[in-house]
Amino acid sequence: MSSARMLYTFDGEFRMHRAGHLQSPTLAYETWGELSAKKDNAILIFSGLSPSAHAASSELDMSAGWWEDMIGSGLPIDTDRYFVICVNSLGSCFGSTGPASINLETGDRYRLSFPVLTLEDVAEAALLVVRHLGIECVHTVVGCSMGGMSALAYCVRHPDAVDRFLSISSAARALPFSIAVRSLQREMIRSDPKWMKGDYDPGDPPITGQRLARKLGMITYRSAEEWAQRFGRERSTDHARIEDQFVAEFAVESYLENHAVKFSGAFDPNCYLYLSHASDLFDLAEYGGSLAAGFKRLSLAKAMVIGVRTDILFPLEQQRELADGISTVCSDTHLAELDCIRGHDSFLVDMDALRPVVCEFFESCKQ
Amino acid sequence: MSSARMLYTFDGEFRMHRAGHLQSPTLAYETWGELSAKKDNAILIFSGLSPSAHAASSELDMSAGWWEDMIGSGLPIDTDRYFVICVNSLGSCFGSTGPASINLETGDRYRLSFPVLTLEDVAEAALLVVRHLGIECVHTVVGCSMGGMSALAYCVRHPDAVDRFLSISSAARALPFSIAVRSLQREMIRSDPKWMKGDYDPGDPPITGQRLARKLGMITYRSAEEWAQRFGRERSTDHARIEDQFVAEFAVESYLENHAVKFSGAFDPNCYLYLSHASDLFDLAEYGGSLAAGFKRLSLAKAMVIGVRTDILFPLEQQRELADGISTVCSDTHLAELDCIRGHDSFLVDMDALRPVVCEFFESCKQ
Repeated sequence: MSSARMLYTFDGEFRMHRAGHLQSPTLAYETWGELSAKKDNAILIFSGLSPSAHAASSELDMSAGWWEDMIGSGLPIDTDRYFVICVNSLGSCFGSTGPASINLETGDRYRLSFPVLTLEDVAEAALLVVRHLGIECVHTVVGCSMGGMSALAYCVRHPDAVDRFLSISSAARALPFSIAVRSLQREMIRSDPKWMKGDYDPGDPPITGQRLARKLGMITYRSAEEWAQRFGRERSTDHARIEDQFVAEFAVESYLENHAVKFSGAFDPNCYLYLSHASDLFDLAEYGGSLAAGFKRLSLAKAMVIGVRTDILFPLEQQRELADGISTVCSDTHLAELDCIRGHDSFLVDMDALRPVVCEFFESCKQ
Repeated sequence: MSSARMLYTFDGEFRMHRAGHLQSPTLAYETWGELSAKKDNAILIFSGLSPSAHAASSELDMSAGWWEDMIGSGLPIDTDRYFVICVNSLGSCFGSTGPASINLETGDRYRLSFPVLTLEDVAEAALLVVRHLGIECVHTVVGCSMGGMSALAYCVRHPDAVDRFLSISSAARALPFSIAVRSLQREMIRSDPKWMKGDYDPGDPPITGQRLARKLGMITYRSAEEWAQRFGRERSTDHARIEDQFVAEFAVESYLENHAVKFSGAFDPNCYLYLSHASDLFDLAEYGGSLAAGFKRLSLAKAMVIGVRTDILFPLEQQRELADGISTVCSDTHLAELDCIRGHDSFLVDMDALRPVVCEFFESCKQ
């Protein structure tokens, strides 16, 4: 367990957006930098589906975070100037209450008795942490991928609690291609006999279904263009596998296998199902009956929408839709279309492309 | 069984391209139209991975074929002028010898003892049928998707046995994105406990793995753009499913489910594995050491390469590569980039777009 991780337990009933409640949920979070006396320099980061709150290293935890090159002293999200907060999403399995947690009302794990999770719940849970830290209004909410939709939920529901919005490779709502991909990933896990309708032994989870789901994830997180350059028709060097004609003949197959094996043991399958489903459910149009109406409810001093040309999960058209929509209420809205070849994952792996635009966003906040 | 289907059994050992042999394999095929006295009007069609030889209806079999609107009297592939042949791919399960067939040498089904299948084998098997019909040189080989690569194998190995080449949504070789997709589809089937390392009960096949694989297929056969227009965030009307939050909430999920269920019972899983793997293996660069050298071995009087803007499995860049390569040896080579939104499947479902270019190809053959 990370020693930088802090836990906040909400004392009471947390009402879920769709239905049901959680009794006294816990939220895990980390912070970097110092909160100013005016409490006006907080940046709240919403992560994608799978990361923990450990976005960056610190003196308390020297291990690299999932956005290590983005957050820190002198880095684009500069901890010399800002107080940075990252909350592990409600429903996840890295300290925040989720389907793998014990239901305090029953003494058993929630599993599928966990109420339907939405990104509204993820946003409201993060707000609890922000309030706990004594902050009324954050300087900027930053959201990547699923986190961009969580951030948008935060902004639309609490326009007075946020001044600026930075969206990276996200969208105003899920479209059928990404819904289909995520639905199939969930079905892969649910089809694994070891899933047992959610009642799997935590020591023997549906690892096969998870491995398949992760591979499909990788296929949609990267790009055909990157792989053509990187692997071409290179053969796998894993000779043990080549004896079986149906296992890893090509380098790209070994790459997927290695990534999937690494991930599969590290994330609780039920938590994955809930967060994945929550991503499908989000739709800004639920605020007022149309996307246009939803955007009208935002109140932002500044916004930036960053997208990547080769992203097939959150394509450029959705970035344009998001930027156009926000610009109807916020004249200081910018769209940055990055020409990265590493697809949706670019925000995690192509720092050279991302750094200048994130820097530009925060530099222009000084003026 | 279709009464239009004809069977040709090769009397002898059929040597496989990589290794091994088949004893007296059978090829299923259908024909339409009349072979001219000069035997110079034959069109040989190579199908994609899953279709049978029943490309179109005829008096002997009135049921619609997989390319019903393309082949027939007065249609783009005009059976009033041409003698059209479609062979069920070697390795498939619709009459041609494949992993689901009985090995005449053992009396048992081949299953995984079937030798490694390549598209070279598919091409050579089709050539056996062409020779059986007394044809020395076909007027045109037509190949769609995987069939385009089979057709290319035919053209590069037997340049004297073909005059013209029409490629539709295919490629000169498989690239890592499509390899990754197909590899994952195969892994889904192999991960189903009912697959039993290929020794499944034919009456109780790995239907779950097949269903997952088919859904991934559909995701890559169509396009995000089509689905956004067609489904948007429409909810499923299948109310029985909605009770479970992880099953078909959105219309696109029901659509995938319905398609997958239809397909899963209809194709032998081992045959699928072999043909899918064969698609990964094909590489024109194996003829001479480079793609450029491979193209140089072709001898064609005319060629057309048709591709679709929204195809993510056989993208436009691969169509351009194919057309550019063929044009180095055939000045009468044309590239048609279709602005269809239905992705890779456009050649099966967007006849209004495909018809004019196929007509143009055959019209210009008359001159």
